[in-house]
Amino acid sequence: MLSEFSLIDRFFARRATAPAPRHDDAAARPLGIGDDCALIAPPAGHQLAISTDMLVEGRHFFPDVDPYALGHKSLAVNLSDLAAMGAAPHAFTLALALPRADEAWLEAFSNGLFDLAQRFDCALVGGDTTSGPLNICITVFGDVPYGAALRRDAAMPGDDIYVSGTLGDARAGLGAIRGEWHAAEGAEWRRALEFPEPRVALGLALRGVARAALDISDGLAGDLMHILKRSGARAIVDADAVPCSEAVRALPESARRQCTLAGGDDYELCFTAPPSARDTLADIAIRVQVPLTRIGTIESSGAPGIAWRDASGAPLSLMLQGFDHFHAD
Amino acid sequence: MLSEFSLIDRFFARRATAPAPRHDDAAARPLGIGDDCALIAPPAGHQLAISTDMLVEGRHFFPDVDPYALGHKSLAVNLSDLAAMGAAPHAFTLALALPRADEAWLEAFSNGLFDLAQRFDCALVGGDTTSGPLNICITVFGDVPYGAALRRDAAMPGDDIYVSGTLGDARAGLGAIRGEWHAAEGAEWRRALEFPEPRVALGLALRGVARAALDISDGLAGDLMHILKRSGARAIVDADAVPCSEAVRALPESARRQCTLAGGDDYELCFTAPPSARDTLADIAIRVQVPLTRIGTIESSGAPGIAWRDASGAPLSLMLQGFDHFHAD
Repeated sequence: MLSEFSLIDRFFARRATAPAPRHDDAAARPLGIGDDCALIAPPAGHQLAISTDMLVEGRHFFPDVDPYALGHKSLAVNLSDLAAMGAAPHAFTLALALPRADEAWLEAFSNGLFDLAQRFDCALVGGDTTSGPLNICITVFGDVPYGAALRRDAAMPGDDIYVSGTLGDARAGLGAIRGEWHAAEGAEWRRALEFPEPRVALGLALRGVARAALDISDGLAGDLMHILKRSGARAIVDADAVPCSEAVRALPESARRQCTLAGGDDYELCFTAPPSARDTLADIAIRVQVPLTRIGTIESSGAPGIAWRDASGAPLSLMLQGFDHFHAD
Repeated sequence: MLSEFSLIDRFFARRATAPAPRHDDAAARPLGIGDDCALIAPPAGHQLAISTDMLVEGRHFFPDVDPYALGHKSLAVNLSDLAAMGAAPHAFTLALALPRADEAWLEAFSNGLFDLAQRFDCALVGGDTTSGPLNICITVFGDVPYGAALRRDAAMPGDDIYVSGTLGDARAGLGAIRGEWHAAEGAEWRRALEFPEPRVALGLALRGVARAALDISDGLAGDLMHILKRSGARAIVDADAVPCSEAVRALPESARRQCTLAGGDDYELCFTAPPSARDTLADIAIRVQVPLTRIGTIESSGAPGIAWRDASGAPLSLMLQGFDHFHAD
């Protein structure tokens, strides 16, 4: 068994990069891992966007998950929160409870984590490890200029509603593993479940273009409601316009809608923007190489709610349940 | 059972206070709980000091711990890291895995947490809750002026070495619970174990006075070694000068030394300062009402190590083991 300190050092501290300096004053030099605290600051005219997520075995991942994928996903879900805010990744802390110091597991986990961190110049600046049931808690820090953050409370009547990429593959993968439907597309779906891609470049491109935004972690229906509640608005959404992969499209209608409208773990962005932004958004979709699909409209201020429509415009009555940790499911 | 969202709202979100504004620009207004990210920034000329700690049942607290005490301690150990850096508390995030949504437990836990947070004007700005084995992960943010942070690498030959308060009561409490020694002082010791007081006012007063500092979470011997390793220095420490309560002093010598020199969970500060600061430190001790005791000297640069002495100045050979999560104990 490795001691706590040599374990941290070998797999994490040695691979931690220094946070980027933001200031000419040498006294303002950032400080990474190894002291009681890290020291960082946003650049002038910026705030730090901060998000924290905790991942637990059996709830967020299967006991047999590939540890490389787990390292990736643990950071990806946090980077997705930065993307949803229009913030540029800067640094993160990692707290890790492990049932045992398994070197092969730690090597793969840390590889998955740092491969993603390095792609986004995101430095590990602090952490904690302890023995205990497997639990991964990451807190991430990003930079956003004053007033540029994409907040949930900024949707306006008349705004278009968009989603990025396709929805439902992660939920379809979960269903295939659970035997809810046929698993011919299992490998592709499982990849969507295990290797979500945080839409960081898209989030940055949406600054000053989108109004409200968030990332879809718990399913479109539930997450869009967060925007509607905080913005005091209603939405009309074309359920059949919600983009999905060919494989999800091939599922029976009820399964497809469960996956696309209420499936969690997609980590695509849902955002609103005025109709005047349509051309700009078409350009952004090409530039960041992420499809953007218009799925509905912010209807009016008032009691928050979603009016679902099908492709013909006819009202749909859907029974959808978002992902909720303390509901029986 | 409460749903995740109503649970968060009832015990945490409703009691979350807004982070303090730091800037006249309305666009730089901080944002607390309820969006994908919180938005905060340090005041002009300051950095954010950041620390994260994860607490796990059976490792950091007993299964029958008073949840009020656990709420206190979860934040206290993080505030202690800010104190050790000379940083002023500003905000924190809370990630919580719970085996079930027990309302009485959550009420007591959140009371312990917020009672301490309010004492230090520390705002809850973000969080995550999930079902899973009990796990508490807090990340804390404090303000420290450029160049004023009390780092571990700043000790200089000739510095005095100090500790605040008394050491060993928390470890004595653990020993009493474990039956290692008689528990006549059990209640007082258990209070030291469960309600550590973060030395925030002391940490702020030490800015510009102390050189190196840290908080004693894993035992004096092991923690002082962190200063010595990062400063490239040796120390001479009078083991019998290390301050302890009357109750700990009454323990047999070997038990007393185990508690005072290697006992974890004290959360007192250990720091170094030049001899020219002695009068200033005496004034600070009175002002912040925390005793400060000089226990040794930074001897020279060189291979890091501690030379222990007894009250007569004779060398002591001690077998001490710091708290280390992955060692069998």
